[in-house]
Amino acid sequence: MNKSIDDILWITLCAGLVFLMQAGFMCLEAGVTRRKNNINVAMKNLADFGVSTLIFWLFGFALMFGASAGGWFGRSDFAPNLDFQDPFRDAFVVFQIMFCGTAATILAGAVAERMRFHSYLLIMVLIAGFSYPIFGHWAWAGLAQNEPVGWLARQGFVDFAGSTVVHSFGGWTSLAALLILGPRMGRFPKDGLPRRMQGADIPLATLGTFILWFGWFGFNGGSTFAANGQIPTIIANTLLAGSGGLVAALLLGWRIRKTAAVDLSLNGVLAGLVAVTAGANAYSSLAAVIVGAIGGMVMVGCDIVLERLRIDDAVSAIPVHLGAGIWGTLAVALFGIPERLNTGLSFWNQLGVQGLGIVACGIWTFCVTYVALSIVNRFSPLRASPPDEEIGLNVSEHGATTDLLDLFMVMDRQSKTGDLSLRVPVEPSLRSVRSPGATTA
Amino acid sequence: MNKSIDDILWITLCAGLVFLMQAGFMCLEAGVTRRKNNINVAMKNLADFGVSTLIFWLFGFALMFGASAGGWFGRSDFAPNLDFQDPFRDAFVVFQIMFCGTAATILAGAVAERMRFHSYLLIMVLIAGFSYPIFGHWAWAGLAQNEPVGWLARQGFVDFAGSTVVHSFGGWTSLAALLILGPRMGRFPKDGLPRRMQGADIPLATLGTFILWFGWFGFNGGSTFAANGQIPTIIANTLLAGSGGLVAALLLGWRIRKTAAVDLSLNGVLAGLVAVTAGANAYSSLAAVIVGAIGGMVMVGCDIVLERLRIDDAVSAIPVHLGAGIWGTLAVALFGIPERLNTGLSFWNQLGVQGLGIVACGIWTFCVTYVALSIVNRFSPLRASPPDEEIGLNVSEHGATTDLLDLFMVMDRQSKTGDLSLRVPVEPSLRSVRSPGATTA
Amino acid sequence: MNKSIDDILWITLCAGLVFLMQAGFMCLEAGVTRRKNNINVAMKNLADFGVSTLIFWLFGFALMFGASAGGWFGRSDFAPNLDFQDPFRDAFVVFQIMFCGTAATILAGAVAERMRFHSYLLIMVLIAGFSYPIFGHWAWAGLAQNEPVGWLARQGFVDFAGSTVVHSFGGWTSLAALLILGPRMGRFPKDGLPRRMQGADIPLATLGTFILWFGWFGFNGGSTFAANGQIPTIIANTLLAGSGGLVAALLLGWRIRKTAAVDLSLNGVLAGLVAVTAGANAYSSLAAVIVGAIGGMVMVGCDIVLERLRIDDAVSAIPVHLGAGIWGTLAVALFGIPERLNTGLSFWNQLGVQGLGIVACGIWTFCVTYVALSIVNRFSPLRASPPDEEIGLNVSEHGATTDLLDLFMVMDRQSKTGDLSLRVPVEPSLRSVRSPGATTA
Repeated sequence: MNKSIDDILWITLCAGLVFLMQAGFMCLEAGVTRRKNNINVAMKNLADFGVSTLIFWLFGFALMFGASAGGWFGRSDFAPNLDFQDPFRDAFVVFQIMFCGTAATILAGAVAERMRFHSYLLIMVLIAGFSYPIFGHWAWAGLAQNEPVGWLARQGFVDFAGSTVVHSFGGWTSLAALLILGPRMGRFPKDGLPRRMQGADIPLATLGTFILWFGWFGFNGGSTFAANGQIPTIIANTLLAGSGGLVAALLLGWRIRKTAAVDLSLNGVLAGLVAVTAGANAYSSLAAVIVGAIGGMVMVGCDIVLERLRIDDAVSAIPVHLGAGIWGTLAVALFGIPERLNTGLSFWNQLGVQGLGIVACGIWTFCVTYVALSIVNRFSPLRASPPDEEIGLNVSEHGATTDLLDLFMVMDRQSKTGDLSLRVPVEPSLRSVRSPGATTA
Repeated sequence: MNKSIDDILWITLCAGLVFLMQAGFMCLEAGVTRRKNNINVAMKNLADFGVSTLIFWLFGFALMFGASAGGWFGRSDFAPNLDFQDPFRDAFVVFQIMFCGTAATILAGAVAERMRFHSYLLIMVLIAGFSYPIFGHWAWAGLAQNEPVGWLARQGFVDFAGSTVVHSFGGWTSLAALLILGPRMGRFPKDGLPRRMQGADIPLATLGTFILWFGWFGFNGGSTFAANGQIPTIIANTLLAGSGGLVAALLLGWRIRKTAAVDLSLNGVLAGLVAVTAGANAYSSLAAVIVGAIGGMVMVGCDIVLERLRIDDAVSAIPVHLGAGIWGTLAVALFGIPERLNTGLSFWNQLGVQGLGIVACGIWTFCVTYVALSIVNRFSPLRASPPDEEIGLNVSEHGATTDLLDLFMVMDRQSKTGDLSLRVPVEPSLRSVRSPGATTA
Repeated sequence: MNKSIDDILWITLCAGLVFLMQAGFMCLEAGVTRRKNNINVAMKNLADFGVSTLIFWLFGFALMFGASAGGWFGRSDFAPNLDFQDPFRDAFVVFQIMFCGTAATILAGAVAERMRFHSYLLIMVLIAGFSYPIFGHWAWAGLAQNEPVGWLARQGFVDFAGSTVVHSFGGWTSLAALLILGPRMGRFPKDGLPRRMQGADIPLATLGTFILWFGWFGFNGGSTFAANGQIPTIIANTLLAGSGGLVAALLLGWRIRKTAAVDLSLNGVLAGLVAVTAGANAYSSLAAVIVGAIGGMVMVGCDIVLERLRIDDAVSAIPVHLGAGIWGTLAVALFGIPERLNTGLSFWNQLGVQGLGIVACGIWTFCVTYVALSIVNRFSPLRASPPDEEIGLNVSEHGATTDLLDLFMVMDRQSKTGDLSLRVPVEPSLRSVRSPGATTA
């Protein structure tokens, strides 16, 4: 491929930014889940990246971008040796590994607080080594060379940086897993209203949202595969859509909940970003704001629907990635400037093929995931046992308690037994020390 | 404008780094304020960016960089369509949106723990859509084209990356708001010494400082508007000044407080960075260290003065951004290499015009903000009610409690009633579980 | 030097990423140590960077890269004026300052929770101004000009981005300091098993690991000193080795500890990264995975050995940086593609000189550090007093308590005295407020 060093470094740099999105997801998900599970959430986000990187490098890249078998899957380039011969290819593989990591990790948040760690890692193998690259082949194979070979891309399906390929994919995977797993204990009490779980650390979750936004500049900006003049427009659209999603979700949430809702603000940004991703290179600035804002509102709506359906998505991954992802994929036909899309399709044909891509992704991803997880579930239960879920996955999966968790537990026992002599056992050094600030009332 | 793709990508990249400063401010401010307000602080930092982005895009950019009305304000380019036609212009707008976001968010920290959320967002509209771009026009309009048109710039005022335009501006805004708002409850007891509030999460605040420093490389490095050989020097000066500010504030604070003060160390870095910003492209390395170090000491001094004046700045935004900002603007005349400044002014004339810019910024920003906020305050009180402030803005503004906040409250009730059966209500799962580590003393 | 603006900006950008590693170390170390010391850990990580930056700029750079005195140390370019004359030189100095900061800060984690703050800063002066640049001269002086002048480099010693020069160096420094300091109170009880201290905030530590990984792309990617086609390969190797280290350490740890160990997963990534660093530009993709995976396993092994030797390394800095660093330096001879190394040495000669470098680094660094710290220790004790260590360095070194620390202390007193009227004193605002969620059981 005839690429300059500028192109190569730009893609490499953007791959780095997409990598950082892993940190963003980790912060967001560990911040909005409960303290007794936050170590497990963090570990899943770290370990899944290592696993998906190795598996996608071994198998996934070949299935997604190898020589095509009739537009259905690739069959060359297994375990590619990224070894100086073709710097652009090397950069491209790194970039795609990061994208796979993003698609894979979306699940972590949805199933948080109840899925077992090793089962989760098994699913990562399935995603990175099979379900993600196959659909990816349909939509993206050959695109970087301007020679689409996947059956879907050849119809004219447009998904610039992955509203469907990455985000809806992650949403469908999450939906299948959640239907098998069921809701967290106590989330939908039999005789009461749904209960929201308190996030352990909202500033950390907000940091995660900012990091994701930052990484998204590389996610969308690098999807040009070239260091060209489109990039500032793409970044501007990414910026405006995120802001649009934030403000729309904040205002709509304020109207519905009568307060400035934290979760909707954080997820509003992400929904705006997911929505603009499919056509970030084809929108006017105003269109980007609108697409993002509607993305934010779609997310709020999906959130309500999921709760009514008693599907328990711990971080609203489905409203953000599936809801706004579907919207964003349709928005390409509605708001994309035709000359930029350059598919030669009429408005209705473009809308139709966008719908086709959405349906194809849904059927493929949901079915494969549902079947595979059902089988796995027989042999290796996906869900933590009730006592393990109750005590929290930090302790049950990693033997990792914290001073705070111990404190909560000791206080709880105190309140039941009236025995104040129960102590937080892990910080003996504190026992003999007088607090510099403690006063007697 | 005759700009290469290298120039365009460099500005775009630096805009991304400036974006990340939003995350830095959020971490810093949520870390040094109290736990009962930290969610509110985080939400303000997220929401203000969305609002300021949309408003600056709609109105602010035009007022700041549109065709000039006599050097006083711009009047074209409202809601610019950032659409491939002029990649440099698109990148420039994105970069300026990020700068506006930085100037606007400085207020969030100063007024933390007592300003109502929706009033805060209203002020964001004022800043991003009016007060910031007007002063910005005076100092920066036309500079990227080497054709200054603002009345202040034409006098020879030099503010390379915004010690005054961004940082002092934010400081003046904060000062006006604080005089209207008044101090937090309990900060200046009638019959005692001023009381410092404990930060909820100092490691998070330290992370914020590092992120700000990192982002500042883009803040100063991108203000060249070109990918040129000045950049390493600018980055070096930014690095050395931050280090100088840190070490100077740490040592001076050690002498004053007899301990290695956390807040002064964090703010020392920022004061050094604010100080070097006005002339980062015009200093020798040694000058950069000195300018940063004096910036750190100015910050320490302002901190003491503010406390004596009983002005309660929750994160020392005024000492950092206004104090060090004024110093940094003067330092351009004192330490800047004349050929680099290239204004043709004598030493005293340069010093005079730097002073003029400082005064102009102060009068404009303080007066506009004070008047506007006074008016707003009549119709929509800026300050949370005493009970809301007492319970904390997390709960009162967002309905967002946390396990820890509940714990503190339950313990407090226990200590008043002696009733141990009060329980932390939100984690029922813990009730029936024996802590793996709990022991009986 | 004949360098393009692309080269210069690439190095500058990578320097920024290496800077961000400081934030990564801070998060990691503050996250895995105890709450009562986490502010001190954060402050050490911030302050050491300021000190090492100024000292390395003043003295270290000259000793490391100045005109060589017979290959043993440099003796020109003290306090270099980074002033536009030679942009590549300026960028190179900035990059090297960041590297020194990395090497220096490794110590902070190892000695956490017991070394006094000002003694720690004194050691930073020693490292940045003497021990690091001297060894660095031996291995790296002249390399950026392809004219190695250090005695070790001239033998053919290869350490691309610093498995030995940076990481093993930091490990040897840590080992010497730990032998003088001794273990934390309670870590090795006389009559019991070693006790692991609980990390205060594992999600923060995980964030730190991600940030370090991100920064490492610049650490290795910038060590080309040119914007060339090797970079994607180097990034790919860095990515694959980190993943290999993670997965290998996770699996090995699972086998040994029967659980998915948090510390080993975090450190597995870092060990993989340390290991690949010496030859990141000379490995095939498969070799990178293997080198990283073995690095992870070496780290697990060293961790066990250290515990048996009763050496108390608070964050496993020695297993990660020294253990994996030694392995990585040897791996260059075992797995490096000879044409890439381009030393002209036979396999056994290359292995020998790699070993020579390891031994030279060990003798120099350990001895200098041990002697210097022993002397310092006489006049200014390195170790906090037992009561200071007990109460925690947050309070004893910075007068910085937190609501949580106070809470633990009050609870502890309650449990000893049975007096519930002891209150957390610092949040009086909570006293009169009814928790919105508190219920009576």
